[in-house]
Amino acid sequence: MARLRGHNISMSLDGYAAGPDQSLDNPLGVGGEGLHTWAVATRSWRKLHGMDGGEEGVDDEFIVRGDAGVGATIMGRNMFGPVRGPWPDDQWTGWWGDEPPYHHPVFVLTHHARAPIPMQGGTTFHFVTDGIEAALEQAVAAADGADVRIGGGAATIQAYLRAGLIDELHVAIAPVLLGGGERLFDNVGGLVDRYDVVEFVSSPVATHMVLGRR
Amino acid sequence: MARLRGHNISMSLDGYAAGPDQSLDNPLGVGGEGLHTWAVATRSWRKLHGMDGGEEGVDDEFIVRGDAGVGATIMGRNMFGPVRGPWPDDQWTGWWGDEPPYHHPVFVLTHHARAPIPMQGGTTFHFVTDGIEAALEQAVAAADGADVRIGGGAATIQAYLRAGLIDELHVAIAPVLLGGGERLFDNVGGLVDRYDVVEFVSSPVATHMVLGRR
Repeated sequence: MARLRGHNISMSLDGYAAGPDQSLDNPLGVGGEGLHTWAVATRSWRKLHGMDGGEEGVDDEFIVRGDAGVGATIMGRNMFGPVRGPWPDDQWTGWWGDEPPYHHPVFVLTHHARAPIPMQGGTTFHFVTDGIEAALEQAVAAADGADVRIGGGAATIQAYLRAGLIDELHVAIAPVLLGGGERLFDNVGGLVDRYDVVEFVSSPVATHMVLGRR
Repeated sequence: MARLRGHNISMSLDGYAAGPDQSLDNPLGVGGEGLHTWAVATRSWRKLHGMDGGEEGVDDEFIVRGDAGVGATIMGRNMFGPVRGPWPDDQWTGWWGDEPPYHHPVFVLTHHARAPIPMQGGTTFHFVTDGIEAALEQAVAAADGADVRIGGGAATIQAYLRAGLIDELHVAIAPVLLGGGERLFDNVGGLVDRYDVVEFVSSPVATHMVLGRR
């Protein structure tokens, strides 16, 4: 049975998954890029984004796990882009250029319908307007036996956690303070009754935790 | 000049310094004792509390640092005990028995005056009713050239962080979920403008961060 997995979700020391004042220039909010310093330094993240070099070790292993056995991704609309409200046109096709690093179907939660966008390299963005369960159903079907990955942002992860639909969630705590923005563990009532901390391991630049559903 | 330092403040993965439903039976809230598993396992914590054995290493080193060069401690009333409102009598003398592990003057923030309580082993509890700055002044004087330690709980630390009075804050992230309780990094507006992450180091059972005032 397909599992819903979250991977490489970065959180600041003060608990934020994105900094304050997100915008086109600051998609992760002010200071938010520091959340991903640990990931960008790894060999596997760099390879996935067309770059050479990078570190091996525990951080790299988590990046590898995040891609293994995943056949579809779900993300919130704010992770797909900065456009809010009805789509003004079809210009915005994500943050990731012509060939996004997904290479599989991606389901974007939105209140505003839009035709699917096929991209280079196997990624197609589908827009789902009828809720998180519907998005999961469609993603499971599209993944064709593989697992489904939950992307972000915080609000999307919270919605799936509240519904108890996430099987495994890997969060990386990064050594930065953001002072505001989107808290990751907010509005997730009942979390402790449904999840255990099943892994806790650190590198010099990140602390990794994995929550597993009971 | 005396510095105000916080040490060995434990926080859960979801950001809580105490669990929900604090009471006489659960002084750290439901699940809160898991916050301190890493500390209780160390040689120095055990020694400080009259026990043999324990682990050495990074966790132990942080426990040692928390006691070094400290001449007085400040704590909130909820850390001193479960009694709320006016003191009904003089019976409650803290959670720590006849010989508390402080061995120096301790200043308890409260709205309700009470005579000082001299304990065995050099600890005296003083009750301060005129605010956090007054408590700090009295603690600095009592420390007699040594530093002052800020104990807890979360509300007390937040008040001193907001006022920019803490010089150094060591927080240990413990691999537990609490799901509710007292958030540590809440109501600390402007934190990122005043503090840097100056240390980030982990053991298998805790991740330690130190915030330093700019």
